[in-house]
Amino acid sequence: MSTAENPRQLPEQPEMHPSRWGDPAVARPLPDSARGLVEMAFGIEESPAIEGALPPVGLAAELVAELRDILGADHVRTDDATRRLRTRGKSTPDLIRARTGDLADAPDVVVRPGGHDDVAAVLEWAVRHRVAVVPFGGGTSVTGGLVARREGYAGLISLDLVRLKRLIEVDPVSMTAVLEPGLRGPEAEALLGEHGLTLGHFPQSFEFATIGGFAATRSSGQSSAGYGRFDSLVVGLRVATPRGELRLGTAPATAAGPDLRQILLGSEGAFGVITAVTVRVRPRPEVKRYEGWRWPSFAAGADAMRTLAQANLLPTVIRLSDENETAINLARPEEIGGDSEGGSLMVVGFEGRPDQVEARRAAVCGLLGRLGGVPLGSEPGESWAAGRFDAPYLRDSMLDVGVLVETLETAAFWSQRDALYTAVRDSLATSLGEGAIVLCHISHVYETGCSLYFTVAAKAGAQPLEQWHAAKVAATGAIVATGGTITHHHAVGTDHQPWLAHEIGDLGVSILRAIKADLDPTGILNPGVLIPAGTQS
Amino acid sequence: MSTAENPRQLPEQPEMHPSRWGDPAVARPLPDSARGLVEMAFGIEESPAIEGALPPVGLAAELVAELRDILGADHVRTDDATRRLRTRGKSTPDLIRARTGDLADAPDVVVRPGGHDDVAAVLEWAVRHRVAVVPFGGGTSVTGGLVARREGYAGLISLDLVRLKRLIEVDPVSMTAVLEPGLRGPEAEALLGEHGLTLGHFPQSFEFATIGGFAATRSSGQSSAGYGRFDSLVVGLRVATPRGELRLGTAPATAAGPDLRQILLGSEGAFGVITAVTVRVRPRPEVKRYEGWRWPSFAAGADAMRTLAQANLLPTVIRLSDENETAINLARPEEIGGDSEGGSLMVVGFEGRPDQVEARRAAVCGLLGRLGGVPLGSEPGESWAAGRFDAPYLRDSMLDVGVLVETLETAAFWSQRDALYTAVRDSLATSLGEGAIVLCHISHVYETGCSLYFTVAAKAGAQPLEQWHAAKVAATGAIVATGGTITHHHAVGTDHQPWLAHEIGDLGVSILRAIKADLDPTGILNPGVLIPAGTQS
Repeated sequence: MSTAENPRQLPEQPEMHPSRWGDPAVARPLPDSARGLVEMAFGIEESPAIEGALPPVGLAAELVAELRDILGADHVRTDDATRRLRTRGKSTPDLIRARTGDLADAPDVVVRPGGHDDVAAVLEWAVRHRVAVVPFGGGTSVTGGLVARREGYAGLISLDLVRLKRLIEVDPVSMTAVLEPGLRGPEAEALLGEHGLTLGHFPQSFEFATIGGFAATRSSGQSSAGYGRFDSLVVGLRVATPRGELRLGTAPATAAGPDLRQILLGSEGAFGVITAVTVRVRPRPEVKRYEGWRWPSFAAGADAMRTLAQANLLPTVIRLSDENETAINLARPEEIGGDSEGGSLMVVGFEGRPDQVEARRAAVCGLLGRLGGVPLGSEPGESWAAGRFDAPYLRDSMLDVGVLVETLETAAFWSQRDALYTAVRDSLATSLGEGAIVLCHISHVYETGCSLYFTVAAKAGAQPLEQWHAAKVAATGAIVATGGTITHHHAVGTDHQPWLAHEIGDLGVSILRAIKADLDPTGILNPGVLIPAGTQS
Repeated sequence: MSTAENPRQLPEQPEMHPSRWGDPAVARPLPDSARGLVEMAFGIEESPAIEGALPPVGLAAELVAELRDILGADHVRTDDATRRLRTRGKSTPDLIRARTGDLADAPDVVVRPGGHDDVAAVLEWAVRHRVAVVPFGGGTSVTGGLVARREGYAGLISLDLVRLKRLIEVDPVSMTAVLEPGLRGPEAEALLGEHGLTLGHFPQSFEFATIGGFAATRSSGQSSAGYGRFDSLVVGLRVATPRGELRLGTAPATAAGPDLRQILLGSEGAFGVITAVTVRVRPRPEVKRYEGWRWPSFAAGADAMRTLAQANLLPTVIRLSDENETAINLARPEEIGGDSEGGSLMVVGFEGRPDQVEARRAAVCGLLGRLGGVPLGSEPGESWAAGRFDAPYLRDSMLDVGVLVETLETAAFWSQRDALYTAVRDSLATSLGEGAIVLCHISHVYETGCSLYFTVAAKAGAQPLEQWHAAKVAATGAIVATGGTITHHHAVGTDHQPWLAHEIGDLGVSILRAIKADLDPTGILNPGVLIPAGTQS
């Protein structure tokens, strides 16, 4: 077991932008072909963002001074630029609000603790003064997870984990590593890479999202078929709560009562602040091989996925676009390749040692061929891999020209897949009206079911927030009516709260409130996030 | 999706016995060779059980009458035979108490609800009258999980789930099934077998233990490498609590907050009564192939297990005896075969379709050979499979001749395995003194670590309960000092409670109390089990 040195040099990270996914300088502009399509579908209406003014700092000066005593002046920020970047997350409604200059949800202060003890000290201070605390990792929430309630509090601070970036320990025998929560995806991979290891967690938010956020929201990455969901990668947690420290995870598996790690995973900052995560790690793959397969229909491709999953024969990456998404992708072949024969495009990827990749690929592709898939070669797979983190930048470009783009996702057991798909697709199309485009893909599969990820594009109306909200309500109504989960990998936040009781029952919500009351009796942690308003303080 | 018919005929089940594992008529007597070994090691001292008298029914007659109104007279039992069989579990201390005639922990009444609504009605009645309720499945707890506190209660009833034996539904597309909690292992397999399916959960208690108990205790079976621990097989739960019903599990995976299923799994009847479990199922294997491998040492075999697990190349069954256990097994070759060259015996088993078994076996055995294992052919594997559920019967036979036999188990990350093994083995040997035999095997492996299962045999002293208690305290002290879990698959019960706070911290215990207070505010459910005495009601 080796205690890793602090990294001498983490890879340089792109900057977030207050009203966009990332730095506009880094983003790819809308390609000409896409612009042509957009013009044809929706018309181009340039819709530049305006820079709004921040509300004044609402926290009393003497409290800010106390924070500076605790953390040092450099780690207690009240400047506009810092506060602006900690305002809300990155859902389309969040971006629309920012683009129209609405920064009403900005934190009063951004604090940057240097470690677990600093976090504990800030929580102790916040309890004493009844200040709301919003834990902040990558800021990539798309479900309102950073928009806490501030009524009844002396102020609201963003607890930015940006300084907690160590790889604390590597255990190469047990193949585990202890990571701090502020590490972004590429940073964690770089540190593990020095040991020949990978975490294998690559959600679309990979460039910005953090280890702590992955844990707090039950993230799932594009390689989940091979590496597992993030919650399945976590073997241990250290958490600072207003009632003290939790350290969980003594063994690979235990029967010592309920698994309390599973209470902190998905707790979205409402129960405590995760200050270290022990994860399973794997050898860094020597080979990555991605390829495309065509299926006559989305249903046929989904059945093939089910067959693979139930045969315990999954590749590292497997995803399937419905006919609409396939057609859109094929319409811009310079980005995501494929031929022009329609149907449904599947991307499969294999990672590992060359012999493992070859053996698994032979078994998987043999079965795909027998099931009626048509191999398209490596180009569609490599194209997908090259652009796998690009969609949020494309959304920025679409918002710039007056097109509302947003996503939502769900999951269900295989027997419900088709009913769920149809119901959600139709509800979105109906709500958004003529001309709206609704795309779907499956990107996470299990023995018992799969996820469904929808992307919509529509001409932004005069009230785009209300426009999207109506679509979201319609789609989520369809989800709960057809037996899907309200979210497979985007968490509850504030956006999904109206349907949480449908998912876990009123009694389930009551359990969450009881845990919250035990760990956070004054209710300072992310108030209003995760747990529906009710009896919680 | 098909709603399964009620089974016309479940396979006939062996009877439990009040002071033995199972029916003495079914048990194999101590083989001559074993008897010779025992005589040599400990001396034979015939130690027959005596039948004790039951305490009078302590529950007021009018309350018993109310129960009869709720469930019908036939399902409210106060006869001696029924109460005797619901007294405690099957740990060696439980058996010793029963063998010496101590039945002080007998329930006042045994009730047999017919379904979820009956269970809910009994709980409502118990809350009203403050009666302690002990949910009862197979009665195979080895950690005091059935010995609830009765002080402060109007009485104590055993809530026997023996009538909840339906396969409620099979979903062959999603490969899930909904099982009632009272189904014993063989019954569940028989019902699923009618659909060509298996659960694949085969703990040593398989013949008696039930679906509800597997869930409530986080059981792990001998085929966990292939099928998974029971908690990993559960996709949904229905639970009756004093505050109402919980239905959990909408999808294969979700990010809708904390995973509340993981609170009910391992809840040991303290939070609610599980009335239905939705599980993953798999095709019934066409082929089962078990074989033996010899390793120069326990450590070498354990390293090979680690290599397999981290290469994602596990067989369906994999277990490894340490040198002591291997020698004992080889000393009675008519039971568990092997040659006489010592070292450490590994059993590996492969189940599935013939092509799957052959492919997996080729890959696994190829690697085992390259790692230095010596193949011993099928005999040691088949012997193990034939006797896999026999050990508890052998324990009865040993107790009959004055030998104390008991087991305990733990798990740790691979890097701690050797230190944990040595510390626990030495602590048991030291505590039990000269002549004691301490055996160990690994029977559950993960990428990050493994279980360790210890069996001890020692001449029973004048005070065998104190003798074992001292050994258990010493061993558990060694476990927590070397980083193991206090239990990998036997739950907390009452026996492991003194160390629960070491496992999850005082704050973790506080969370359990908060959940208990929310779901069971009057504290009627299995009082004193799982959660250490303290502020819980």
